[in-house]
Amino acid sequence: MTRLYDDPARFTEDMLSGFLDAYADYVVGVPGGVVRAAVPRAGKVGVVVGGGSGHYPAFCGVVGQGFSDGAVVGNVFTSPSAADAASVARAVDAGAGVLLTTGNYAGDVMNFNLAVDQLRAEGIDARYFAVTDDVASAPAAEITKRRGIAGDFTVFKTASAAAEAGYDLDGVERVAGLSNDRTRTLGVAFDGCTLPGEHEPLFTVPAGKMGLGLGIHGEPGVSEDAMPTASELAATLVDTLLAEIPVGAGSRVTAILNGLGRTKYEELFLLWGLVAQRLRDAGLEIVQPEVGELVTSLDMAGCSLTLMWLDEELERLWSAPADTPAYRKGSSATPTAAAQPRRGEGATDTPAHHSAVATLDAAALACGARVAGALDAMAARMAEMESELGHLDAIAGDGDHGRGMVRGTASAREAAITARDEGAGPGSVLTAAGESWAAKAGGTSGVLWGAGLVALGRRIGDDSAPGAESVVAGLRDGYQALTELGKAQPGDKTMLDSLLPFIDALDVAVKEGTHLWQAWDQAADRADEAALATAALRPKVGRARPLAERSVGTPDPGAISMAACLRAVGRALDDR
Amino acid sequence: MTRLYDDPARFTEDMLSGFLDAYADYVVGVPGGVVRAAVPRAGKVGVVVGGGSGHYPAFCGVVGQGFSDGAVVGNVFTSPSAADAASVARAVDAGAGVLLTTGNYAGDVMNFNLAVDQLRAEGIDARYFAVTDDVASAPAAEITKRRGIAGDFTVFKTASAAAEAGYDLDGVERVAGLSNDRTRTLGVAFDGCTLPGEHEPLFTVPAGKMGLGLGIHGEPGVSEDAMPTASELAATLVDTLLAEIPVGAGSRVTAILNGLGRTKYEELFLLWGLVAQRLRDAGLEIVQPEVGELVTSLDMAGCSLTLMWLDEELERLWSAPADTPAYRKGSSATPTAAAQPRRGEGATDTPAHHSAVATLDAAALACGARVAGALDAMAARMAEMESELGHLDAIAGDGDHGRGMVRGTASAREAAITARDEGAGPGSVLTAAGESWAAKAGGTSGVLWGAGLVALGRRIGDDSAPGAESVVAGLRDGYQALTELGKAQPGDKTMLDSLLPFIDALDVAVKEGTHLWQAWDQAADRADEAALATAALRPKVGRARPLAERSVGTPDPGAISMAACLRAVGRALDDR
Repeated sequence: MTRLYDDPARFTEDMLSGFLDAYADYVVGVPGGVVRAAVPRAGKVGVVVGGGSGHYPAFCGVVGQGFSDGAVVGNVFTSPSAADAASVARAVDAGAGVLLTTGNYAGDVMNFNLAVDQLRAEGIDARYFAVTDDVASAPAAEITKRRGIAGDFTVFKTASAAAEAGYDLDGVERVAGLSNDRTRTLGVAFDGCTLPGEHEPLFTVPAGKMGLGLGIHGEPGVSEDAMPTASELAATLVDTLLAEIPVGAGSRVTAILNGLGRTKYEELFLLWGLVAQRLRDAGLEIVQPEVGELVTSLDMAGCSLTLMWLDEELERLWSAPADTPAYRKGSSATPTAAAQPRRGEGATDTPAHHSAVATLDAAALACGARVAGALDAMAARMAEMESELGHLDAIAGDGDHGRGMVRGTASAREAAITARDEGAGPGSVLTAAGESWAAKAGGTSGVLWGAGLVALGRRIGDDSAPGAESVVAGLRDGYQALTELGKAQPGDKTMLDSLLPFIDALDVAVKEGTHLWQAWDQAADRADEAALATAALRPKVGRARPLAERSVGTPDPGAISMAACLRAVGRALDDR
Repeated sequence: MTRLYDDPARFTEDMLSGFLDAYADYVVGVPGGVVRAAVPRAGKVGVVVGGGSGHYPAFCGVVGQGFSDGAVVGNVFTSPSAADAASVARAVDAGAGVLLTTGNYAGDVMNFNLAVDQLRAEGIDARYFAVTDDVASAPAAEITKRRGIAGDFTVFKTASAAAEAGYDLDGVERVAGLSNDRTRTLGVAFDGCTLPGEHEPLFTVPAGKMGLGLGIHGEPGVSEDAMPTASELAATLVDTLLAEIPVGAGSRVTAILNGLGRTKYEELFLLWGLVAQRLRDAGLEIVQPEVGELVTSLDMAGCSLTLMWLDEELERLWSAPADTPAYRKGSSATPTAAAQPRRGEGATDTPAHHSAVATLDAAALACGARVAGALDAMAARMAEMESELGHLDAIAGDGDHGRGMVRGTASAREAAITARDEGAGPGSVLTAAGESWAAKAGGTSGVLWGAGLVALGRRIGDDSAPGAESVVAGLRDGYQALTELGKAQPGDKTMLDSLLPFIDALDVAVKEGTHLWQAWDQAADRADEAALATAALRPKVGRARPLAERSVGTPDPGAISMAACLRAVGRALDDR
């Protein structure tokens, strides 16, 4: 929802005032909107964009060199008045006329046409153009009834670049028409947005559903479907647009994958990878795409895909530099002397793991396989506990412990199984598992568990079957590695608080002659108790004070997961 | 929530793959992260930034000329591994060493320090620096325990600019330390974010509350307060930071007002206006501020204010050009020939209204005052109905009808009262009201109501008291103006559908000799019935087909508000 304001009735004025302050180098206010801070070049055609606010960067965010000369700024989701549109147009007129352009909405069409009448009566050559890119808003046979959504951006950009390049008003108007003819958009929404001062959203989409074709003001779409996977959504967006290839279109397109406000960059990039692949599979060449928030709808969840099929002229205009508050293309950053491109080196290489080089006897191989089995059991247990650990961690930390343990144990399992298959003994299996855990899981738990397993593996070695004392000594080595790296001590509310009682109990029981796996099971009981008892502790290392206070009363997720892993390992290895 | 993915376990890899595709001109992938597409300049110090993902543009969005050389990309909210950090650092090393820098989190500190050890063992001069800008995460006496949040951005930018400018590794490290010493951030959160694949948010903030000092992974803050107004929030943010002015600070600062993901640009600009004013009131000069999303937390609602106190060196480095996927400063856009700045012309001028020039008799003045009273009643009625009209409009439209009618009737009332006070008769009061409505409310209803009132006023004139026939004729003129402008006909599901039955009924009753206000009241009954009956209609003008279907069964909000206005006007004018 929209929360930040003093008086919702003054939301747009107050927003505009802050915008003008932040971008004083780019823009100044005029009655009805904003214009470039620099006076217009004599003889340049003016381009005025506009519509209601609530869509930033549309529309005031794209006023500047290479883009529009002015923006008319209406109230949230409301057309500006004819007087506002005429006022902004007058301010940018440099004697060569003005193109006023908006998305195709009844209010904008009426007000901007009235403004054009008024400007012409004053002797300013003014034209109006309405963008109609939204394929969901009317069938192809009624294309002039379609709404303008994120395709506003491609039309405004190319028409503005034409004006910057010195086209006359007829030429700028022609480019607007051409780029509109070549532009198609399909949008989807996952949840509504809330107008300033309202407590209920303007509209909602049921949980787990997607509104296909829903407009940027919540206008109903063509259907309500189950929430798709990213691949399914990419297919829907691409295939719908490719069913409407404009007349005369070639194989070069630009694309905008636009976020509506609450569907964030990471999600857009993920979706873009799938969209780009599908476009290329269809034989299209993608030129300078944009992935991000260009035409938003307050905090609405959703996104849209726009395609503009390029010809030589549109490609040149699309690629031209621009320098506006929200959109900058072309740079004066010092080029690197040796700015030669490097080849991609692949982002997803697998880190090297230790291969077992020596050939081991059957007992050592069997032991290695058992250790790999124990790591498999640990991974399975962490997958079960992911959500529980995440919630525990969220109370005082960043909530990533469950996901981190799943990532880590899964990586360890995979490396362990590969090592086993390559003939590794128990020590090498543990070393491979620890290295893979640290490398692939990251995070605090990753680096610590990794170091612990490597230390344990080093002590255990690849002898056929380590004795109970060797296991205990290996665990103490692992514990030592953890304390050196993590700088924590017992009582600091960390994984050490269940690991140390476990090792101590195991040590005593083994020395008393208890069978290793019986001793392990008893020690795991101690680890469980100790993990729960961390609820009474206050963390001391690497945590700021408010977190420390907050975590009191909650057991440490690292201590809990340590105890659970020790239990799972013991059960998997128990050969009694 | 985070919704777009195929497999949540592969979220980061898939995100990265789409990011690299979208910005292939800027970046290439290497194991563990991304680096600039251009090979590093020999002898340039490398700067590697990093941390978990989920914070875009942090951190991979700021790899490029003038900014970082590479970014290590961990899983969502999770430190990357030491192996990842070392891998990215190796890829950017150009013989002059590498500074690795992250926010101050235990996992990042451990992994990046391990990477530094490893790089040094390989003969690469590597250093690590942790940013500690979050004033809420530890008291000033324990400043090294503080987390790094949006202040990462100022530290990374200035250290990177130093490297670009040819500083050696000692110099780059010194700049990182200096800018960190000079940087302070306070963040607030209004609602949580949801990790990919999770169905519950990582944390929540109770409705109507604000978490003060809540971290970018949901780490608890210092207090939970009632949701403030924008002015109160600006005061809290500014005053808290100004209580911690760094040693040696002067009066020049830069600022980042950062959105966390769901607190959108319009809100940030509104807040910025208040923050900037308060900073200037405190005697500070603001240099090149940034307002937008620079360090996000998935779809978290909230924002943070960062201040960096500048000296000459930091100001130069902060102002240096940069060209990265998400952050570009300095432009090659063609400068305007006559690029002289224009003076601000004021964004909030009041449009001129018609003054009554002729001096009228007492009866005409009294009639003008009664009309102004009727417009006042209309505004009061629309204020009552705002929410109801908004919800009706949201079913098939963009939900702005209630807000638009409130804006419009309030503007009309204000202009009418001013005209009355200046001695206007009824016609001039109506004309002033209509012009103000159209100019200030915008939207479809604004332009139509404005034109209707102006036409009515023209017919009524400023004679002392118009007769009933003149009122009916004026309403018919208004109706005519609406149909010409709006291109709608009765039955198209618009305001005409209650206005026309009203006029017809009024006309008949007046002709039958019924007292005007009795006739008006009866006609208002007809208007109410007709407005409700629009539920059965399908809109025909300016609406796309899905909207038409969707609106069937719901009365038209324009017809409803028209009937309500007619009723309110009749009651206010009734002098029986």
